[in-house]
Amino acid sequence: MLKVLKFGGTSVGTLDRIRNVANIIKDIRDEGHDVIAVVSAMSGETNKLIEYAQSFSNNPTASEMDMLLSSGERVTSALLSITLNEQGYETTSMSGREAGIITDNVHTKARIESIDTSNMKKAISEGKIIVVAGFQGVTQDSKRVSTLGRGGSDLTAVAIAGAIKADVCEIYTDVDGIYTTDPRIEPKAKKLDKISYDEMLELASLGAKVLQNRSVEMAKKLNVNLVSRSSFTPEVEGTLITKEENIMEKPVVSGIALDKNQIRVGMYGVTDRPGIASTIFTALADAKINVDMIVQTVGVDGKTDLDFTIPTTDWEICKKVTETFKDETKKVDYNDKICKVSVVGVGMKSNTGVASKAFTALANENINIRIISTSEIKISMIVEEKYAELAVRALHDAYNLDK
Amino acid sequence: MLKVLKFGGTSVGTLDRIRNVANIIKDIRDEGHDVIAVVSAMSGETNKLIEYAQSFSNNPTASEMDMLLSSGERVTSALLSITLNEQGYETTSMSGREAGIITDNVHTKARIESIDTSNMKKAISEGKIIVVAGFQGVTQDSKRVSTLGRGGSDLTAVAIAGAIKADVCEIYTDVDGIYTTDPRIEPKAKKLDKISYDEMLELASLGAKVLQNRSVEMAKKLNVNLVSRSSFTPEVEGTLITKEENIMEKPVVSGIALDKNQIRVGMYGVTDRPGIASTIFTALADAKINVDMIVQTVGVDGKTDLDFTIPTTDWEICKKVTETFKDETKKVDYNDKICKVSVVGVGMKSNTGVASKAFTALANENINIRIISTSEIKISMIVEEKYAELAVRALHDAYNLDK
Repeated sequence: MLKVLKFGGTSVGTLDRIRNVANIIKDIRDEGHDVIAVVSAMSGETNKLIEYAQSFSNNPTASEMDMLLSSGERVTSALLSITLNEQGYETTSMSGREAGIITDNVHTKARIESIDTSNMKKAISEGKIIVVAGFQGVTQDSKRVSTLGRGGSDLTAVAIAGAIKADVCEIYTDVDGIYTTDPRIEPKAKKLDKISYDEMLELASLGAKVLQNRSVEMAKKLNVNLVSRSSFTPEVEGTLITKEENIMEKPVVSGIALDKNQIRVGMYGVTDRPGIASTIFTALADAKINVDMIVQTVGVDGKTDLDFTIPTTDWEICKKVTETFKDETKKVDYNDKICKVSVVGVGMKSNTGVASKAFTALANENINIRIISTSEIKISMIVEEKYAELAVRALHDAYNLDK
Repeated sequence: MLKVLKFGGTSVGTLDRIRNVANIIKDIRDEGHDVIAVVSAMSGETNKLIEYAQSFSNNPTASEMDMLLSSGERVTSALLSITLNEQGYETTSMSGREAGIITDNVHTKARIESIDTSNMKKAISEGKIIVVAGFQGVTQDSKRVSTLGRGGSDLTAVAIAGAIKADVCEIYTDVDGIYTTDPRIEPKAKKLDKISYDEMLELASLGAKVLQNRSVEMAKKLNVNLVSRSSFTPEVEGTLITKEENIMEKPVVSGIALDKNQIRVGMYGVTDRPGIASTIFTALADAKINVDMIVQTVGVDGKTDLDFTIPTTDWEICKKVTETFKDETKKVDYNDKICKVSVVGVGMKSNTGVASKAFTALANENINIRIISTSEIKISMIVEEKYAELAVRALHDAYNLDK
């Protein structure tokens, strides 16, 4: 098999941790697999360089930031290559450029446009382990080094796995897979063996921070089998994120997610003229505010009430937008003492009664649901924040996720 | 004018020092000059990375060491570029690759084969200050990053100045030029305004550590006007190292050099067969021992005595070589309590009595000369180490170098 392995900053954070990663790679190699490892900068290095740059400028030149920040991954790739060499393994480090990664021209948050895999294929055919400096490529036009922004090393690994048609892309972090819910909230949470891309996307956007949506979306698009596992306990199998068709027994519910970083916005007594809701939500979208759950209620007085949630970080900018509608609104209020609990599972599509089980479970605990929104594979509910953990445990229990 | 400026590790050792370098560059730019700055890694960074690598391997892969070590200069070039940008100057950093530096394929001690200046010329024509990451290029064949070994950033600067036909190449260190002798030994030592390449080469090989011979040799070959000056006192003019023809008034003696890192080897009672000396010195050369001053005396008993000096670092290997001649040698001894003082000056060629003045000066101080060797522009003398400083001062005085 051809395996792409990705090791994040914590996994390569010290010289001992790099040694540990070398051992993981050796074991996989010794089983007869071809290996492309993608590495991040040692944890702390990138932040140090950012601080250096910010001591010179509040708004440092993007192309120079890329020259600066891309160095950390190069260092890790060389060090990992050296320790594998020392133990008798043929390796070669590769910068993003050498790995053939071409991006668009947007420095510090570039998107991968294409990957020329010829250099990597040649090294693999020569029996070499490849260690790629993650998070970087070169721009299409000027061929200057570019970086991919947050989660860039995961993206590098997934994109390489897709381009070179690897059998699997294993993302190593400090957690050993995807759980039915956060084990710090529900100790009975179980690690999932398999989960579909769509379920993972829902869980990730709802606060499971193991994998970022950008990477999961790319894995889905490129049909890459993704595995989330831990470099601290490499003997544990991890969770496979794959196509729904690859999952034989589809569970009705895969997991319960919790997101506390939301606030509820209420716009009450809005003049009910045609298109008013659309006008407001267009204005919010133009301000790049990620509006999530929306409930619209038309009152008997011919006025409309709008309820929706936004990420806490968008609070200030949201206030500015709602302010522009103050002549058409009776009252606007904000509530940050709420949270969103979600039930996620592909099996919902073909099962009835999934939602009512959730409502019953919360009702049994006397938890009021303020807003509900559903998709094909998800039911999200806004409840008071003080009930967050209780709600998660009640739902986990209701769907027997500990079994 | 087009000026190439080189700043070493101490000159860019902290963020404040980088700010200081930016100020030097700004002043030169504001005078209307085009600028290419070549920078080293921040002092300490390269050693840290070497330690990291050595914790994994006693003999780390050369190509991976280059991937590792080249990162330090990239960081400095980006940071310096960012601070210049912030102050309104158009700049661009360049890696060795971007600066067009092609080397041979010998990783960690590559030699520059050629420089494609088109990228630099374009940036200059766009009015940009260029900040090149020193010490690196890419190999001819595999186009992998390579490093140039000790003094590599100086070499980068000189090679670029030669290739792009810069008017001057200024090497900034923590000393403000070349002195008639080491001011710590002779406080009356004076800074030289100008010195020829050949004199500089003699002084450098004799212990003046400001510039390395590899760089001076390249400057001579490429006809680059080199200036040694200080980034700590940029208002001081420094010393110009140039062609002999460019120096109008050629001083008889330019400086006095001292080298304490030599030992004297005596091989006594060597069988005087034809070619014996040649055999011995060939064996020493094959062992890469840098034999310097040689005196051969044939005794009346048909035996030969050989006296020569070698660098202290070659002592162990030299013992092994002389051991192979033990059947043909009565006795071998080593003396590390000696030093070499040298009088250097292009004017010697056309002046008589220069040597006798040196011998008289030392005789007046009752200093015995053990070995003498002369070249067109240099007289070197081996004396007991305890007289080192006294000899330097006596010679400095004899040639009125404080005037």
